[in-house]
Amino acid sequence: MLYAVIIAGGKGERFWPRSVRARPKQFQRIVTGRTMLQETFYRVYPEIPGERIFIGAGEQHRSIILEQLDEVDGGNLIVEPVGRNTAPAIGLASSLISSRDPEAVIAVLSADHVVKPRDAFLSALRDAEKAAEQGYIVTFGIEPDRPATEFGYIEVAELLKGDFGHEIFTVKRFREKPSLELAEEYRTAGTFLWNSGMFIFRADVLLGAMETHMPALYRGLMRIRTSLGTADEQQVIEEEFSGFESISIDYGVMERFDRIACLKPRFFWDDVGSWGALERHLKGDDRGIIRSGNVITVDSEKSIVLGDEESIIALVGMRDTIVVKEGGRILVCHKNADQRIKDVLKKIAERGENLPYL
Amino acid sequence: MLYAVIIAGGKGERFWPRSVRARPKQFQRIVTGRTMLQETFYRVYPEIPGERIFIGAGEQHRSIILEQLDEVDGGNLIVEPVGRNTAPAIGLASSLISSRDPEAVIAVLSADHVVKPRDAFLSALRDAEKAAEQGYIVTFGIEPDRPATEFGYIEVAELLKGDFGHEIFTVKRFREKPSLELAEEYRTAGTFLWNSGMFIFRADVLLGAMETHMPALYRGLMRIRTSLGTADEQQVIEEEFSGFESISIDYGVMERFDRIACLKPRFFWDDVGSWGALERHLKGDDRGIIRSGNVITVDSEKSIVLGDEESIIALVGMRDTIVVKEGGRILVCHKNADQRIKDVLKKIAERGENLPYL
Repeated sequence: MLYAVIIAGGKGERFWPRSVRARPKQFQRIVTGRTMLQETFYRVYPEIPGERIFIGAGEQHRSIILEQLDEVDGGNLIVEPVGRNTAPAIGLASSLISSRDPEAVIAVLSADHVVKPRDAFLSALRDAEKAAEQGYIVTFGIEPDRPATEFGYIEVAELLKGDFGHEIFTVKRFREKPSLELAEEYRTAGTFLWNSGMFIFRADVLLGAMETHMPALYRGLMRIRTSLGTADEQQVIEEEFSGFESISIDYGVMERFDRIACLKPRFFWDDVGSWGALERHLKGDDRGIIRSGNVITVDSEKSIVLGDEESIIALVGMRDTIVVKEGGRILVCHKNADQRIKDVLKKIAERGENLPYL
Repeated sequence: MLYAVIIAGGKGERFWPRSVRARPKQFQRIVTGRTMLQETFYRVYPEIPGERIFIGAGEQHRSIILEQLDEVDGGNLIVEPVGRNTAPAIGLASSLISSRDPEAVIAVLSADHVVKPRDAFLSALRDAEKAAEQGYIVTFGIEPDRPATEFGYIEVAELLKGDFGHEIFTVKRFREKPSLELAEEYRTAGTFLWNSGMFIFRADVLLGAMETHMPALYRGLMRIRTSLGTADEQQVIEEEFSGFESISIDYGVMERFDRIACLKPRFFWDDVGSWGALERHLKGDDRGIIRSGNVITVDSEKSIVLGDEESIIALVGMRDTIVVKEGGRILVCHKNADQRIKDVLKKIAERGENLPYL
């Protein structure tokens, strides 16, 4: 049976000021009229029924998730007592799900990526499930259409044999985010795909890989599993979690495990990693301006201006500028500098002005 | 006796969004902690006592003026029933004042200019008063320190003889705002001074000049004067005013009258005609950023960011940018484009969104 685990633990700092700690990017309407979490959920629901869709998130976001997803109940939230990166979170989810269904196949999905169209995604998912049932941890590797430096890459080797509707490759190596020069080489080579961060596996296969490559984590997960349904459950989860090493699933498992496959899907994927990325998803006007809310522009072009109905934003003589207002937070940022928005958050934190600004 | 008439009828559109119809630039704190009207008032008060200082303004600003100036009472407001530019407004003020004091000398001052230091201003005023008593309309002509294209110029001729502490010249001609090339020539010539728009005259001299050069206006003013203190006063003012031609004092009187003098003062003067002009008055930080309110900057320079305490403004990777937030109005403007802020107001008006945005 196929399960989905939607990872909704991101901080979304690059989407400040709309994204804040209390309501990060995945809980916001960034590209469509639905929040990114809702988009992710309804991408697999109802093909995967609500009781088999789990959401991994921090305790502080429990009520937002239940508010945004009617079909999910509190029992489907996998709450990390403390953030320990993706390996412990995915290990915990696998442990919980496999205790109910030892045959479970789990698709791990990011709550804040754009994937479309839905049909192509579901078709890729079904094929990946088949490969996962054969014992592979299956990643989704996106064919680059530009020399992106903001993604990791997967270097693929040979085609897997089997009755698949997609090309599924064995994996030679995972590659870190490259320089622009290297990214150009990757694209020319044709055997490097973007690591979308989504993957699918049999729960027992993943736990087996953790037993081999992350034995301390594995032991903790097994102790948690034994406690499930007992009065100690919550306490054991908290104890074990706080002791886990903070480590990503890529580093902890994927780069060490020998049965990794990579499916090349036919859907469009983007992690929408910054405000500037919106230009890949929204059409601007004839001056290249993407706008929402009450906005007036004079002699301006190639800009993103996102306001609200409470106020008016006037842009005069500007280009390549991002302006976002959200409540009492206003960002004015050059497009080339949107990676430095994090520095704003640092400065706010240094001033001790966390609320209502972070 | 010396009187002051402070002209506070400007719209201040170039200072949107802080300046709005209900509270234009002259009623705002732009350069100092006092409003520009307050600065203007206390530049002559108490040397000129409160009962001899009049404020010319629109009816809609009566309460702001009384709120900002404790020393002024309603009787000292000269309210124009409709805006008809400066000639009718100054004519009305002269008519009202001369009906009380036929010997009155009147200094006409703009409510939204920067003039400093105060001592130098008062000293120039006293000298100008002397020349005015000899029958001159005396302007203040500022020595250019740059080839400004945003001011009119006064071409001066010979020095007036007399016991003056300043150079006071006869005037050859008034010149419109020049091209940059012409402005350079003016500066080199040394006989061209900026027309500060302030002047001083005997009320009877001005009214005599109007009788000669603007006879229709003069007749209307005399009809108003006859009605003063009668039950018809307000009705006559309204009737006459609505019939007056809308014309500036420069065009209607100054360019035609033969006894114009120009005093070259020793004070600093600026009309602070745009947000960009703030750089002449406020010192930025070491990156050239002028800021107020809750502002965070990252990798930015040479900008003006004026926020408030209700919200935070973050500037990232920007330069030569003006950001001003005032209530629900936000401006993001390139420094080179600040003359186009008026186009924003036009667009707001076209949309019919006058309040609370204009």
